[in-house]
Order: sequence, then C-alpha cells, then structure tokens
Amino acid sequence: MAESETPNRSPEIRKDRVNNRWVLFSPARSRRPSDFKAKSNPQPNNQTECPFCAGHEHECAPEIFRIPADSTNDWKIRVIQNLYPAVSRELDFQNSVSVIGDVAVSGFGFHDVVIESPIHSVNLSDLPPVEVGEVLLAAKKRIEQLRNCESIKYVQVFKNHGASAGASMSHSHSQMIALPIVPPTVSARLDSKKEYYKQTGKCYLCDIQPNELLIDESAHFISLVPFAATFAFEIWIIPRDHSSHFHEIDSEKAIDLGGLLKLMLLKISLQLNNPPFNLLIHTSPFQDDPSAAPSTHWFLQIAPHLSGVGGFEIATGCYINPVFPEDAARILRDVKIS
Amino acid sequence: MAESETPNRSPEIRKDRVNNRWVLFSPARSRRPSDFKAKSNPQPNNQTECPFCAGHEHECAPEIFRIPADSTNDWKIRVIQNLYPAVSRELDFQNSVSVIGDVAVSGFGFHDVVIESPIHSVNLSDLPPVEVGEVLLAAKKRIEQLRNCESIKYVQVFKNHGASAGASMSHSHSQMIALPIVPPTVSARLDSKKEYYKQTGKCYLCDIQPNELLIDESAHFISLVPFAATFAFEIWIIPRDHSSHFHEIDSEKAIDLGGLLKLMLLKISLQLNNPPFNLLIHTSPFQDDPSAAPSTHWFLQIAPHLSGVGGFEIATGCYINPVFPEDAARILRDVKIS
Ligand SMILES: Nc1ncnc2c1ncn2[C@@H]1O[C@H](COP(=O)(O)OP(=O)(O)O[C@H]2O[C@H](CO)[C@@H](O)[C@H](O)[C@H]2O)[C@@H](O)[C@H]1O
Ligand SMILES: Nc1ncnc2c1ncn2[C@@H]1O[C@H](COP(=O)(O)OP(=O)(O)O[C@H]2O[C@H](CO)[C@@H](O)[C@H](O)[C@H]2O)[C@@H](O)[C@H]1O
Repeated sequence: MAESETPNRSPEIRKDRVNNRWVLFSPARSRRPSDFKAKSNPQPNNQTECPFCAGHEHECAPEIFRIPADSTNDWKIRVIQNLYPAVSRELDFQNSVSVIGDVAVSGFGFHDVVIESPIHSVNLSDLPPVEVGEVLLAAKKRIEQLRNCESIKYVQVFKNHGASAGASMSHSHSQMIALPIVPPTVSARLDSKKEYYKQTGKCYLCDIQPNELLIDESAHFISLVPFAATFAFEIWIIPRDHSSHFHEIDSEKAIDLGGLLKLMLLKISLQLNNPPFNLLIHTSPFQDDPSAAPSTHWFLQIAPHLSGVGGFEIATGCYINPVFPEDAARILRDVKIS
Repeated sequence: MAESETPNRSPEIRKDRVNNRWVLFSPARSRRPSDFKAKSNPQPNNQTECPFCAGHEHECAPEIFRIPADSTNDWKIRVIQNLYPAVSRELDFQNSVSVIGDVAVSGFGFHDVVIESPIHSVNLSDLPPVEVGEVLLAAKKRIEQLRNCESIKYVQVFKNHGASAGASMSHSHSQMIALPIVPPTVSARLDSKKEYYKQTGKCYLCDIQPNELLIDESAHFISLVPFAATFAFEIWIIPRDHSSHFHEIDSEKAIDLGGLLKLMLLKISLQLNNPPFNLLIHTSPFQDDPSAAPSTHWFLQIAPHLSGVGGFEIATGCYINPVFPEDAARILRDVKIS
C-alpha cells in the first residue's frame, strides 16, 4: 500500500480545482487503530431469484429498451424503469410547491436502471471492451431520449458496486437519474471551470499535464489520479478532445473508452481486492449556457471506498485521503493484468 | 416508521436554503429490496485496553487540558491531541506549495480529541444535562485557544457515534479540526444565508417558523427537523437569540443546551434503536467578514445514519431522504422519555 511507503510525509491540503473544494492528505491517518470489530464486507445472498437475471424480466419495472433492439431471450443490456424511484415520471413538473420562505418542487424526473448483463455473476469488468462500450452507448441513447423532455435539466449516470458503495442489488447494473434541477456539485464544477478559463484562457481538463499522475492512455482518453483526489486510489478518465457532454461520444470512442475503463476496473480490483466503488459520469446540464462550452469537459470518475466517511466530511465537504495521488498513480501504473 | 404512514405520497424536491442544495424526498425508496446480507452493525470489541479510559492517559497523545483543571485521577473530560492527525500542528503554515496550475498548502492545523467521560461505557446521552453542558464548554474553551492562532480560519467540532457513522473508537468522544482554510460547505452556507438576508432583511434561522417541524424547546434553544433534511430523522438545535459563533455561548446557555441535546439523543436512541449518528456544530469562520454577521447564526446538527449513501449523492451533492420532515418531527415529538 502506498501509505507504508510515505509514512513520514507531512500532511498537505490540496485544492480540487474542478470541484472547488479542499482535500486533506495525511498518510498518518492510515495507521490509526479501531476497537470496532472489522466491518465485514456484506456478500450477496445466494441468488436464485434476481429480477435482473435473464428469464425474470416480468419481475422488473417496465423496460425502456434493450440491446440488441430486436432480441428476445438473448438480450445483452436492458434499460428499465426503477421500481422504487427517487423521482417520479408520472408527476407534472411544478415549480414551488411553496411553503413560506422555503422552496420545493414536485419530485418529477426519471429514474432508470441499466442492467449490464443478463448473467448474475458477470461484472462490468468481465465484459470485452466492445461490450463495455455498448453499456456506455446505452446510457448515451437514454440520455438522448431524456433530452427531449423540456423540464429535465441534468442526467446523472452512476454505478454502485459493492454494499458499502451503496449497492442493494449485486447483479451488475448502473442507474440514471434525470432531474428538473441542476445539482449543487454540478453548478459548483461549472463555476469553478469557468473561473479557470477566465484566468488562463484554457479548459482545465484540456490543460492538464498528468506527468507522475498518469496511469494509462488509449487513442482517445487518458486515465490518471487527480491532483486532489477525494478518495484513495480515485481515478479519472478524461477524453483527450474537448467535449462538454458525455452524450456527444460516438461508437468508436465509446469502444476505445470501454477498453480503458475495463483496464482501470481490473487494476483496482486486482490491487485493492475487489473494493466497493462508484463509477460516475460527470457531464454538463442540457441547457448549458453557451459561454460555458469552452470550459466544460465531461469525464468519468472511479471512486473506490476503502474506508468510510465521518462527521468531518459531512460537515465541511473536505475529505481526508491517506494516500498521496502520486503514490496511487505509480502503484496503479505498475499493476500488470495478465 | 414514518415511511409506512405515507406510502403513497408523491416525491418532492426541496431546497435546503441554509446549505443551498436540493434534497429528494421519496417514501417509495424505503421499500426497495436488497440481496446483500444485512449489514451487521459492527459492535465494539470487549475493551480492556482503551487509551481513552481513566488510568490509560499515558497511552494517549499529549493532553491539552482537563476538566476540572486541577483534577488528577478524577477528571471528567480530557481534551488531547489526536495521535493520528489529519493536519499537523508542527508544520509552518505555507501557502501554495504550488504545482503548476494547481494549488496546495502545507497541512498545518490542529486535530484534537475531546474524551467526554473517563468511563468506557458512558455515552454522551447518559451524562446529566450539566455535564453535557460541560462537554460543550470544553469545546468552547478549546476554540477560544485556537482563535489566537492567526493562520486558523475555521474550527469544525464533530462527533462520530457508531462504526457506520465513521467511529473507530467506541469510547465516547468528539473531535475538533482547526483548519487554515474555510471549508467549501461553510462558504456555501455563508453565501446562502447572506443571500436570504439580502432578499428579506432577516436571518433565515431567526426567521424560521417551525410549526409542524418543531420537536421540543428549552429556555434558549429550539429543536426541529429541517424543512429539507438531508438525513431521515435529522435534527437541528438552534439558539433562539441571533449569534454567529458557537464560542459565544455562556455557561447558563451551555447547560440549557446540554439538556435539550441530551433529550434529542435519547429520543433518537429510543425511537431508532441506538442508530449511528454524527453530531456537528456549524459555526462561522473566525475572521468573519462583518457584513456577514447579521445573517450567520450557529446551530447544531444531529445526523442519524439509517442507510448508507451511493454514487448519486457523491456525484451530485443531492441526497435522497425516504422520510418527510413533518413525519419525522411528529414521531420525535411523541417519543416519551421515562
Ligand atoms: N491513543 C490515542 N491518543 C490520541 N488519539 C487517538 C489515540 N488512538 C486513537 N486516536 C484517535 O481517536 C480518533 C477517534 O475518532 P473517531 O472514532 O471519531 O473516528 P476517526 O477519526 O478514526 O475516523 C472517522 O472520522 C474521520 C473524520 O470524519 C473520517 O475521515 C474517517 O473516515 C472516519 O472513520 C481517531 O481520529 C484516532 O486518530
Ligand atoms: N424489480 C425491480 N425492477 C426495477 N428496479 C428494481 C427492482 N428491484 C430493485 N430495483 C432497483 O434497483 C436499484 C439497485 O440500485 P443500487 O444497488 O445501485 O443501489 P440503490 O439505488 O438501492 O441505493 C444506493 O444508491 C442510492 C443513490 O446513490 C443511495 O441513495 C442509497 O443510499 C444507496 O444504497 C435500486 O434503486 C432499486 O430501487
């Protein structure tokens, strides 16, 4: 582990310029004891009755589409409605269900699930690069449908892998939530990138010089550990060409990304022993203010969860990371996938 | 549980005007299944060797002060250095350990632990109101010391109770981290409250009309569920009189607060079966811009952790809460402490 290699390095506080927040780096933290019994990583129950498995389609909320489109029992990917949605497609969008002084809107939106394989035991990283690319293209296709809904401002694509990363279902899947509002972290990111553009005339992610933070590269993408990584061994995959919206990706690039994403998932799985993680696509709102286009650049984040968070992070929005990004990048660069 | 009483209520998206972020309320979410084995709540090991217990003082990092000041083996509270600190009191504060384009500062700061009782099995809520008040006054005293350090901009006081709220030590304690930067959520809160003041000429927390959100009251404080609670059964305790900084509290108010805080901790423990929680003191930066004083108002937050978070919250900063605040407040109002 990286922390054992830099035990005496002094703590450092780094600014995450993309998210405009601070991260505390402190290798000493990784040595603290715990008097709670080791948190066991909950394992999935022996699953005979998973609604996401092939043959159980009738136990799911309605399907939106499948891939291939004309497949019957031999589908590869299904995009379905979430049966327990956080927002409802059946509501009208209404602004200000107003309570004096406070603001509420109806919980209108779309909450979908992308079933990434018909087979229960297959992980995203088990798929060949082309099929990882197809999962990404399924998300793109669904986003393009959601774009037609005028009230939707932003779509968040996310994947929870492992119980402590939030997953309640072990069958490989990701989720998409389409919202009638622009989420706070997205606004903060847009503002922060605009500010960098104003100062330098450049897009922060185009301008990035990964050097010792680089992990790997493909024809159209680079993967690196960000300078102010929030999580130990966090990875960003960034398109080389400037592009504001994930849904602008074409098939060739999606397959190229599929390969690099698969490689990164295999590396963290091998190095960190199949850790829980979140996979997040950070894109721009639909009705992007045109002046933001030169500074907004979509990217993909892999956030492993090697330890929980506590009150300090909830209160301050500052995270504590025991592993310096340079160390994490060196280790991930050197992982050999046989 | 509240969710069973509003099973068919439509989702709603509410604006948290203090933190300037959105929260999704969706009772349907509480019914979703999980195919992971139940997450066992890790229990503390049988503790014979806890460094926070009376008699083990020599196993701890250096003491800063104790209460009563002249006590020997009969101390009630000890404020000590954290042995595995996230920031270091031994560094000089240096701005910009600059890497091209990126910003870092040395990890200067203070990371302390407040041991709330000499006895391993005593929880904060087991103490009489006066002694809960004394724990609050110990934090006040330490903040006043830290104020003398010019480079410190903000002190975060927080308590992790239970392993899934982040606690690594089961002996009742809280922590204080003094930072050379103003954390992002604090800046966002200041901006948001200033904005409300600009619009209305009033402080949001002075202006609050709790009505159906009220839980209990004391001479100087009220406790309520916030309109856009981030967590199910979240509680805020707000001083009735306008005050920007927690450390302005006097002994009489601290003891009054001690009583109300104890009551709230007992209520959530009884109603929610001793849930893991964070207790957070939200105050203002030391060198507060004077124009902010009329709009900043410190308060205390109790955040129970009844379920984890996933990729959506990490990506967007929007939380999903299955329990409407009105329902949580009604339930907590009605809990009878015998
Ligand atoms: N002998 C000794 N003398 C002095 N101090 C000692 C000591 N032995 C242990 N300590 C310190 O005591 C503290 C106990 O704190 P908590 O149990 O509240 O959570 P912890 O800080 O470990 O991490 C939780 O809170 C932080 C901040 O929110 C999160 O980053 C993290 O993920 C979460 O688990 C630790 O910080 C530890 O360093
Ligand atoms: N038969 C069926 N048909 C269709 N859909 C079905 C279904 N059975 C279950 N589902 C849905 O499948 C989804 C599985 O999602 P995940 O395992 O990624 O995490 P979940 O959304 O439960 O919560 C995690 O992610 C969210 C968002 O980050 C956090 O709020 C939460 O705390 C964390 O546990 C659930 O949302 C569930 O509603």
